[in-house]
Amino acid sequence: MIAIDWGTSSLRGWLLDEAGNVLDRRRADIGALGHGERCAEILSRQIEGWSDAQIVMCGMVGARGGWREAAYVECPAGAQAIAAAMLRVETDATALQDRIVRIVPGMVDRRSSSVADVMRGEETQIVGLLPVLQEPFEVVCLPGTHSKWVGIRDGRVASIRTAMTGETYALFRTHSVLARSMAAHDDAFDGASFDAGLRRSADAGGLLHHLFGVRTQGLFGQLSPEQAPSWLSGLLIGHEIREQLPLPQVVHLVGNDRLATAYARALAALDIETRSHSEQSAASGMRTLLQAAAP
Amino acid sequence: MIAIDWGTSSLRGWLLDEAGNVLDRRRADIGALGHGERCAEILSRQIEGWSDAQIVMCGMVGARGGWREAAYVECPAGAQAIAAAMLRVETDATALQDRIVRIVPGMVDRRSSSVADVMRGEETQIVGLLPVLQEPFEVVCLPGTHSKWVGIRDGRVASIRTAMTGETYALFRTHSVLARSMAAHDDAFDGASFDAGLRRSADAGGLLHHLFGVRTQGLFGQLSPEQAPSWLSGLLIGHEIREQLPLPQVVHLVGNDRLATAYARALAALDIETRSHSEQSAASGMRTLLQAAAP
Repeated sequence: MIAIDWGTSSLRGWLLDEAGNVLDRRRADIGALGHGERCAEILSRQIEGWSDAQIVMCGMVGARGGWREAAYVECPAGAQAIAAAMLRVETDATALQDRIVRIVPGMVDRRSSSVADVMRGEETQIVGLLPVLQEPFEVVCLPGTHSKWVGIRDGRVASIRTAMTGETYALFRTHSVLARSMAAHDDAFDGASFDAGLRRSADAGGLLHHLFGVRTQGLFGQLSPEQAPSWLSGLLIGHEIREQLPLPQVVHLVGNDRLATAYARALAALDIETRSHSEQSAASGMRTLLQAAAP
Repeated sequence: MIAIDWGTSSLRGWLLDEAGNVLDRRRADIGALGHGERCAEILSRQIEGWSDAQIVMCGMVGARGGWREAAYVECPAGAQAIAAAMLRVETDATALQDRIVRIVPGMVDRRSSSVADVMRGEETQIVGLLPVLQEPFEVVCLPGTHSKWVGIRDGRVASIRTAMTGETYALFRTHSVLARSMAAHDDAFDGASFDAGLRRSADAGGLLHHLFGVRTQGLFGQLSPEQAPSWLSGLLIGHEIREQLPLPQVVHLVGNDRLATAYARALAALDIETRSHSEQSAASGMRTLLQAAAP
């Protein structure tokens, strides 16, 4: 089968054999939004030479503004329900004839709060993790531009909470008055500054107040322009995580990059253990969903 | 005397008689930063025709990067201590010869929190309000790009807390993914949406999570692009104010514009009364400081 994770900014593809082994992989910096029917052509080019008949896709390709809108599945739902809601894409594209193209739906949580929350793409990574999520209640954190905190109860996705942490970091890092207190183009991780920002998140005053500390500490020489980005990162991640408490003893993190490392450090400061999982769990998830849909 | 409030983006000047009556006023969209010694020339042009010998200035003109850096006065401090710390500016500019030019210092609060907080310009507005701040403890809120919450104990400025609310609004309104859910160039105030955002700020999950509600409510048609800016504003102001609780029964607001109206509405929702004061209190403040410095 062919598994495609097509998000806002990139497309990642895996060619899998029947046992789920990765035979080949591809990656392109092409976002899924705004192409309309040309998605067929883009996809065809990306999978050139891969002849498998089954194609499963997840991510923003199924959003409004993507290729086809695959409606959100309501929480709670497990792999079976998600698989049953996959959208079959009909297309005339030559390279896709005689193939079955499916898009995994996103998920919506309308029950945890007065305002609904959603994810699209992350549900597939979580399906790929389900075999290791064996406790009655598990929490998966997928850090990023929009971090997702997902509660899993008895093998089903029960709750979704998004935190706009990565985007907030980027906005203040680049466009705010605080940018003047930070060294341009230098985001080297400084552990002590990150930890100080993390501790600051526990103080009174709230995030809107704490942010100003980048400026005042710069003003009084307590935070150098090179340290400030790490302090800001620690502050924001600290606020994000504190709002998730209480958390189970172990939190599952998806991603092995430096962002996941930072989250693991922040959680460790709260005595919470982490297990890190590869983003390739999306490929396993699509395989599970295909098997559930077409056994 | 001549009173000049010279901030980041504009200069406002008042010509006052001995009783404190405003005889004339001026305003120019010239920020105080980055001009160096050319500030003398800019000031001369702005006060053309005003012949008074005493000139008092406040705001970013006294910041690093302004005309001359006037060091911060430590909290707690009253009008007398602020006046004593005014900086006398020596200049060769023809139009300023035979005049005495002073810059009001900013203030720093190093005691309320592990991270210092500062203000520059607002202290002068507060000095102008001191005659009406007669309770043993009073709170003044100066809403804006960087809102200031200032505690006044026994007539002295005791604490400063900044919240980057206005700037956060502008960043998310303009540069974030949420901008797509909001009507461009339409910031008409929608009371019901503002109140809904305000209520949302009381929910679990934190600001980084709540922000995402602009997107999800847009997605599900619960918030129109025209309503979304007011919801975002209510959310942010709600978070800002909740972090200041507990507050006294009455909060003093500086500013009569629509921002102050929104803050009054948000505070009323928490059963807190407000008294609104004009930003012209800066002029009264400079007059008080001049009298204290040169009686």
